[in-house]
Amino acid sequence: MTHPAAKSTEQAQHIAEVVRAGMYANDRAIHALGIAITSIGPGTATVTMTVRADMLNGFAIIHGGLVATLADTAFAYACNAYNEMTVASGFSMDLMAPAHEGDVLTAVAAEVQLAGRTGVYDVTVHKQDGTLVGVFRGRSYRMKGRKTVPHLTT
Amino acid sequence: MTHPAAKSTEQAQHIAEVVRAGMYANDRAIHALGIAITSIGPGTATVTMTVRADMLNGFAIIHGGLVATLADTAFAYACNAYNEMTVASGFSMDLMAPAHEGDVLTAVAAEVQLAGRTGVYDVTVHKQDGTLVGVFRGRSYRMKGRKTVPHLTT
Amino acid sequence: MTHPAAKSTEQAQHIAEVVRAGMYANDRAIHALGIAITSIGPGTATVTMTVRADMLNGFAIIHGGLVATLADTAFAYACNAYNEMTVASGFSMDLMAPAHEGDVLTAVAAEVQLAGRTGVYDVTVHKQDGTLVGVFRGRSYRMKGRKTVPHLTT
Amino acid sequence: MTHPAAKSTEQAQHIAEVVRAGMYANDRAIHALGIAITSIGPGTATVTMTVRADMLNGFAIIHGGLVATLADTAFAYACNAYNEMTVASGFSMDLMAPAHEGDVLTAVAAEVQLAGRTGVYDVTVHKQDGTLVGVFRGRSYRMKGRKTVPHLTT
Repeated sequence: MTHPAAKSTEQAQHIAEVVRAGMYANDRAIHALGIAITSIGPGTATVTMTVRADMLNGFAIIHGGLVATLADTAFAYACNAYNEMTVASGFSMDLMAPAHEGDVLTAVAAEVQLAGRTGVYDVTVHKQDGTLVGVFRGRSYRMKGRKTVPHLTT
Repeated sequence: MTHPAAKSTEQAQHIAEVVRAGMYANDRAIHALGIAITSIGPGTATVTMTVRADMLNGFAIIHGGLVATLADTAFAYACNAYNEMTVASGFSMDLMAPAHEGDVLTAVAAEVQLAGRTGVYDVTVHKQDGTLVGVFRGRSYRMKGRKTVPHLTT
Repeated sequence: MTHPAAKSTEQAQHIAEVVRAGMYANDRAIHALGIAITSIGPGTATVTMTVRADMLNGFAIIHGGLVATLADTAFAYACNAYNEMTVASGFSMDLMAPAHEGDVLTAVAAEVQLAGRTGVYDVTVHKQDGTLVGVFRGRSYRMKGRKTVPHLTT
Repeated sequence: MTHPAAKSTEQAQHIAEVVRAGMYANDRAIHALGIAITSIGPGTATVTMTVRADMLNGFAIIHGGLVATLADTAFAYACNAYNEMTVASGFSMDLMAPAHEGDVLTAVAAEVQLAGRTGVYDVTVHKQDGTLVGVFRGRSYRMKGRKTVPHLTT
């Protein structure tokens, strides 16, 4: 997968890291949820979240929408890592196993395809013991001529 | 769509309302998000949420995962309204328009099909001005022999 | 839903009908499958297909992919009815009931949202006895500056 | 991923191959489409199809539904390879690149998760030159107490 404006590997990685810092500084939702962006690269991201009591539904398991929120975060960082402002046009989530209070969830996003202004990204969500909690597939749409982090100088 | 254990209309509505109360009392995630369950019926539910500052991503719009969380809540209440414990096996979300701080989102869930232990539910999410924010389609799976609200006497 | 280049109702319907005729003349797959386009309008289409022996899988029911092919046909005609060349970027299909040899399937497509170059369309597939066979949700992408039927003069 | 009734590797592979033969003998749709099942294993299958003139839509590219039909075939063989009758409850398809007359498409299905009576399978579809045509995610549902190939003695 070659991105249209591909840079050297080092440049691309540098841009991804600066974008992460810029996005993270302004991203209130993920701070509220305690999500950490543990790694980033061109088209990839890994994020983690610990399941808190205030994330549980009436069955004492994490609300499925919050699993999707974690996966969507990995997707958002992965698809913005080129510093071209990109939003989700949609996604699907399949839930395989529940997670409980105190579980640590890790979502890993990888680019499946990027062509023109649209892309597809796959995200897996695992628990700390390796259990597969769910799989997510996101569809991205790049905004024309807008940077994710406007003042990034590369 | 006739549910296998269909009751009279009044009974079915009564069960739905008791289930809503029972689920809501124990549902910590939706309390944390300020979600209200504004109406319930057999296979249907309407829920609302006001977009708060701590729900915004770095682009100052609501995190897409939280739109899915709202829609998933409507879906969960709709598919549990028969008092047979039902979980989401998956869902898809298409996002059409952003929502900003202070916007009031309403998600309406309706049953498309319920057959055996699986069901499909459609949810629409609108803003207070009528803008369609997104559409969600959920797939439900009923747990064998378990009640959503165990001690409900009907 | 107002399409960017909205015309009067009569003009829009006329364009849709001319597009149907133009698409149908060149559409070899739907001729091979015996699909008829029974009605068309701006953003809507109805198509039918009779299940033949050569559409059955090893369980003697119609191959699920061919149900999707019928639904995708309704979607394609609905989203091209404005005479702006539009392709599917993806779709989801939920299958609810099987269909057998001789069953007549009808797929009805309706526009959920059309904004900029992307759209979402819902399609339902029913049997002749009213049984819901499946629901399909398609995502469309409009090609820039290309007509579906190039020489249509309106 | 351990299947509940896991056998030795050789037994599982033998069952898969006998199931393939049994399914293929009765599968009229894939004969009509010229689909070959080129490899099979427990939870996996590879299938191929050459794009024919009668598979093209009005834009002279393969009908998207027929790409899904090919992917759905790989999925069906993969999820039935344990000889427990399994049907698709639904799937999603993302289309990345068109295919033209004469292109040879290969779909490879792999099991993501199998738990209880439901499973998730991923399928990729490539052209002969390595171009990714689409990705498909299928959801399976196992019928209780029914064999795919009833008289298979193992």
